[in-house]
Amino acid sequence: MMRPGAKQYVVARPLYSEESFAEEHEKIYRQRKTIRDHVIQYFTCDTKRAKNAALSLLPIIGWLKSYQIKEWLLSDIVSGVSTGLVAVLQGLAYCLLASLPPWYGLFSAFFPVIIYFFLGTSRHISVGPFPVLCLMIGSVVTRLVPDEGPAAFNTSKFEGLTQDEQRVLVASSVTLLVGIMQLAMGLLQVGFVVMYLSDTLVSGFSTAAAIHILVSQLKFVLGLQVPGISGPFSILYTLEIIFNKITSTNVCDVVISLVIIVVVFIVKELNDRFKSKLPVPIPIEVIMTVIACGVSYGFDFKTRYGVDTVGFIPKGYEPPIAPNMDIIQETAMEAFPMAIVGFAVAFSVAKVYSIKHDYTIDGNQELIAFGVSNIFGASFRSFAVSTALSRSAVQESTGGKTQVAGLLSAIIVMIVTVAIGFLLDPLPKSVLGAVVVVNLKGMLMQFREVPYLWKKDKPDCMVWLATCTAAIFLGLDLGLAVGLGAELISVILRVQFPRCSVLANIAGTDIYKDRKDYISIYEPEGVKIFRIPSPIFFANIDFFRNKLVEAVGFSPLRVLRKRNKALRTIRKLLKKGDLQWTSRGFVNTSCKSAIMESDDGNDMEELDRPNDFKDLPVRIDWNAELPANIVVPRVELHSLILDFAAVSFLDISALKGLKTMLQELIRVEIDIYIVACDPYILEKLHDCSFFDDEVQPSIFFLTLHDAMLHILESHPEANKAHNEKILTTVTVHYPGGNMRSRDKSAPDQTKF
Amino acid sequence: MMRPGAKQYVVARPLYSEESFAEEHEKIYRQRKTIRDHVIQYFTCDTKRAKNAALSLLPIIGWLKSYQIKEWLLSDIVSGVSTGLVAVLQGLAYCLLASLPPWYGLFSAFFPVIIYFFLGTSRHISVGPFPVLCLMIGSVVTRLVPDEGPAAFNTSKFEGLTQDEQRVLVASSVTLLVGIMQLAMGLLQVGFVVMYLSDTLVSGFSTAAAIHILVSQLKFVLGLQVPGISGPFSILYTLEIIFNKITSTNVCDVVISLVIIVVVFIVKELNDRFKSKLPVPIPIEVIMTVIACGVSYGFDFKTRYGVDTVGFIPKGYEPPIAPNMDIIQETAMEAFPMAIVGFAVAFSVAKVYSIKHDYTIDGNQELIAFGVSNIFGASFRSFAVSTALSRSAVQESTGGKTQVAGLLSAIIVMIVTVAIGFLLDPLPKSVLGAVVVVNLKGMLMQFREVPYLWKKDKPDCMVWLATCTAAIFLGLDLGLAVGLGAELISVILRVQFPRCSVLANIAGTDIYKDRKDYISIYEPEGVKIFRIPSPIFFANIDFFRNKLVEAVGFSPLRVLRKRNKALRTIRKLLKKGDLQWTSRGFVNTSCKSAIMESDDGNDMEELDRPNDFKDLPVRIDWNAELPANIVVPRVELHSLILDFAAVSFLDISALKGLKTMLQELIRVEIDIYIVACDPYILEKLHDCSFFDDEVQPSIFFLTLHDAMLHILESHPEANKAHNEKILTTVTVHYPGGNMRSRDKSAPDQTKF
Repeated sequence: MMRPGAKQYVVARPLYSEESFAEEHEKIYRQRKTIRDHVIQYFTCDTKRAKNAALSLLPIIGWLKSYQIKEWLLSDIVSGVSTGLVAVLQGLAYCLLASLPPWYGLFSAFFPVIIYFFLGTSRHISVGPFPVLCLMIGSVVTRLVPDEGPAAFNTSKFEGLTQDEQRVLVASSVTLLVGIMQLAMGLLQVGFVVMYLSDTLVSGFSTAAAIHILVSQLKFVLGLQVPGISGPFSILYTLEIIFNKITSTNVCDVVISLVIIVVVFIVKELNDRFKSKLPVPIPIEVIMTVIACGVSYGFDFKTRYGVDTVGFIPKGYEPPIAPNMDIIQETAMEAFPMAIVGFAVAFSVAKVYSIKHDYTIDGNQELIAFGVSNIFGASFRSFAVSTALSRSAVQESTGGKTQVAGLLSAIIVMIVTVAIGFLLDPLPKSVLGAVVVVNLKGMLMQFREVPYLWKKDKPDCMVWLATCTAAIFLGLDLGLAVGLGAELISVILRVQFPRCSVLANIAGTDIYKDRKDYISIYEPEGVKIFRIPSPIFFANIDFFRNKLVEAVGFSPLRVLRKRNKALRTIRKLLKKGDLQWTSRGFVNTSCKSAIMESDDGNDMEELDRPNDFKDLPVRIDWNAELPANIVVPRVELHSLILDFAAVSFLDISALKGLKTMLQELIRVEIDIYIVACDPYILEKLHDCSFFDDEVQPSIFFLTLHDAMLHILESHPEANKAHNEKILTTVTVHYPGGNMRSRDKSAPDQTKF
Repeated sequence: MMRPGAKQYVVARPLYSEESFAEEHEKIYRQRKTIRDHVIQYFTCDTKRAKNAALSLLPIIGWLKSYQIKEWLLSDIVSGVSTGLVAVLQGLAYCLLASLPPWYGLFSAFFPVIIYFFLGTSRHISVGPFPVLCLMIGSVVTRLVPDEGPAAFNTSKFEGLTQDEQRVLVASSVTLLVGIMQLAMGLLQVGFVVMYLSDTLVSGFSTAAAIHILVSQLKFVLGLQVPGISGPFSILYTLEIIFNKITSTNVCDVVISLVIIVVVFIVKELNDRFKSKLPVPIPIEVIMTVIACGVSYGFDFKTRYGVDTVGFIPKGYEPPIAPNMDIIQETAMEAFPMAIVGFAVAFSVAKVYSIKHDYTIDGNQELIAFGVSNIFGASFRSFAVSTALSRSAVQESTGGKTQVAGLLSAIIVMIVTVAIGFLLDPLPKSVLGAVVVVNLKGMLMQFREVPYLWKKDKPDCMVWLATCTAAIFLGLDLGLAVGLGAELISVILRVQFPRCSVLANIAGTDIYKDRKDYISIYEPEGVKIFRIPSPIFFANIDFFRNKLVEAVGFSPLRVLRKRNKALRTIRKLLKKGDLQWTSRGFVNTSCKSAIMESDDGNDMEELDRPNDFKDLPVRIDWNAELPANIVVPRVELHSLILDFAAVSFLDISALKGLKTMLQELIRVEIDIYIVACDPYILEKLHDCSFFDDEVQPSIFFLTLHDAMLHILESHPEANKAHNEKILTTVTVHYPGGNMRSRDKSAPDQTKF
């Protein structure tokens, strides 16, 4: 079948089983590290390690030493000021999501940034309020301190506090808990957990978050009074209230919002389109806010149109606050997803910039940095922070080189807090709402992924939909849990139900393919090749067993029992003299047909043992005619090859199941071969005393073709016709058109 | 290297890439079923399907038709009577676990059995109370109706009911819910979920259950009054109370219990040892109970020693009861694990017997059978049932052939209920407790699995320990959830962190093995073979990326950027005239060294594009000396082979990650080859438009050796030395010791 002139694949080597290969090629003994070694290594301490650890705990030492003042400082200042303006605006806006008075958002854009400056490893992210996290805080805050009625939660600490003070206490307690969790995860070096948040999960989750944010901002955009609701299905209740109140919409708020949304949207599009031509993107949100602030002040929107404004912003900072243990206990279940989400978002944004600018970030150090930032922030009444994609983009695109820019942005925020906060007094809340809404575009556009995912990968699409639906209706924390569950189950299902196939030889080659896929294939009689295309573990061992029984066409256990019953009957007949052993074989001396024993259940176990011919004059050939008209199902199969190339692990259940499977097959006199087995699996089988008198290590062969050649050698008569087919592998077409063929069974006549 | 006389492996065929193979061997077009086809097929209905469905819904029709009265009836009667006696005893004993008055256990051993007789597919299991399930019911019962103080849960239905009546109402409501859940799962055909309960999980879980049962029986064995406690850590609180009260132990109870435990234990051991010689195991528990009953009556233990006895058993049945919706709502979270555990245990016992006696059971029909049994039972005040291993063993070992034996055992139970229940009045509860305790031996012995598992498979051992610890301390329902989580995570972790390896050729063969494992291996210069030994998905794509970068020794992205920067510098120098292109190559006309541009961040994206030589006079050879002293990291690698043999699936994240990885490598002029890729994955890659101008389908080769030969052919100069090594594959030692060698590059001079 070879084309003249085509490149050739020619191999001649000994036939290898795993054992013969191991004999000829000695393996180098490699000392494996035990768990003990790892532990010792982990806790070994020398000067260098201690120094490295100290350096990695304070990354600022590293980058500040190499700070290029001339080249970087100017960019950092420009970037810091721009980011600072955005941070002020976003601080106020996102604070509305957290159901807290706006100026606490300014605190959150200040205190954590200071700590991150010292501890963070990313040079480009802008630490501060993150809308999704704010929303999650808002959900806890409104659960414990609802808008209407008394606090749903009783603690002595709430006495004598106003509603806003109660809320700040709740927010800062939760933030402290989030910080402690992040710090603990960082110290335990478990930063890798974020890898379980796949792109699909994050996309579905953040789309749901965008919808939540949109709904929560509707009340500001429409100028309505809507109580914050939390818990499953809160989004439906909120929408219900909004639609009930829709008639009392404040038209002035709607107009302001629409103008802002349209203008910001258009200018952002232009920013995007003329990215390369603009030195710095137009800070349209800041401009619009300043204009809106001026207009609102000039026309006195607050009293004239009843517009809800930011109002009085107290000058300066408030004294530190002690967390409340009752609140911490009550909110533990909600703080954990916040800790995960906050870190995951910051880390993924940081990773993008670290790849872009070619430096390394350290997940565990990031966890520590955010943990300490949140703990520190919580003491000063700020709420849990992460990073906002849009703000980080501003910091990076305006030329920020290091966290010096972050520090400067914090200083801008501080200036607003301590000096010019009063200027923001007339700013309508609807402006802030509109700014939040217009920034949702990117997150909402992720809906476009759904048809794409559905076309490409249905399980992934189901994960997206499950995460998004659950997060919308059950809330973000439960939604995250559901999404994680769906994702893990999707992996399990993929591993669990793979497509098994029966392989056959592509004539004239050493290649084996699915027999259903090709025409010119050869299957030697009595040989089956079964490919197991995935790891085997507790959840799919039965699946494979069934598939294998289907592939071989009979249940080995049933055949074994029938044979053992037949043997018992033969023994009985021999004893009674109804059957006699002569040189011509068994001879019936009675004309009665033998009656097979009925299934009386008590000696079932005996029937599962291997056939025992010890008191019989001859081994019985089960595929020949049996004496006394005994009928036992014929088994045409003599060899079964299991292709383990894609089996990447086996667990204990799989080991047991596999062994039973092999034993049953071996007991009905089928030769089993396992090929292309991973060396680690082979090692594990040896360690777990998988082998015994029946299941022997000699069943392992290096490749499928090795096993097949071995089978053809040991069953030459049965595979006469096929033998030739396989052996024409050593046939080559020469350009002249001559064809020479050689039979491998006569190797010493061959000349190469 | 071949041993004379050894079996040979000789292959000569064209060299195949996936494309050339597909050209020569046409694939048969197979119509794949779409989801729509499956749905249509599922809902298609014809007479045959309808008939089959009806038959499978009422399995009794099937087996009753073929009932062999002569041979089976006697065994069934014997078995039924023995099982009935055990069922009475276990009914009373296990009822104590459920914190209900003992006679309700008799109801539970009667009503559900009747339904199972009609609907069940197993012929050997004895349906009725199952200790673990009883314990789970008991935990709900004591949570809602504690021993001391008022009901913890307010419902108007509780008014006017005694504590026991309240408890029965709770138990029957929960049972109804369990039944509904099981029925729903059966109708939805999700019986396969039990395969997630691996042997390891079940072993850990049932060991924990045994400990719970032991602790809960201590109060009966010691004759103490201990309130039932439920919820996390209840076992610790219970033990605390027991130890506090230990001084008020009833000595009579302790003596009775010890006698029973010792005698029953010894006789059971004897039963086991002389299994083959005894026609029927000695029903020692029944005998001891009868004796204890008589002694207690004769010596009036109740009044004389204050022994707590079973007491008055009302004659006959009680009227049906309506479930309470409030309770159902309150207990939904606890009913689900009960539904799963109850079914899983029954199904696994049934499966053992079905394999032993060679008939099929149907998981979904079993779910329906248990669902209906529980719904029916709940109406008649029985509690949730499953099967007890010990009772089923009695039914099978005494010769039970069909559920006729089960029906007879129910009739025995009924006789006790309606006629001779009063005989059990003086039976001390400590006897029942002792019987329960002695039956825990098997379950507790499972602790011996721990060291075995630790030695064989550490992740499995961790799952066992996690399940067992969580189930002991957090309670059985939460423990089951924790166990399931641990189990799924263990699978994910196994798939996620496999051992990657770099392969090398075993000299003179087509075999490739881990280069660290063998001495006589050859690695052609500039070629790396990287084996990915597991499926690739969102959680390990980064892991593989890092491993690959580690294996090739450089980050392709970083090299690409350096090269692009160098290109830019060269262009600038050419423009300025500091560099000129002559026939001898680039010539520096200025003596200054070129200054590489600094990293200004804004055009980073451009640096990630492929090298663009379009306005340069020549393509630059990056590994040669560069003009103007520009230094770019040298890349020795020219070809990289990825072995995909064990990659059983790819998800969308992996697809994206893989593509980026390949692009980065291709852009630094490394030829990528992917070998042994699963046909389904290849198909998926085509479907998902994985290929473009850079990543082409021609990179796929059938086997590692095909790719290697192709590489050696295209890089002959670089691999001169090695070429010979690989090509001596066509070298054979003849017995005479002559050795003839042939170079594959001159195939037309060869004679076979």
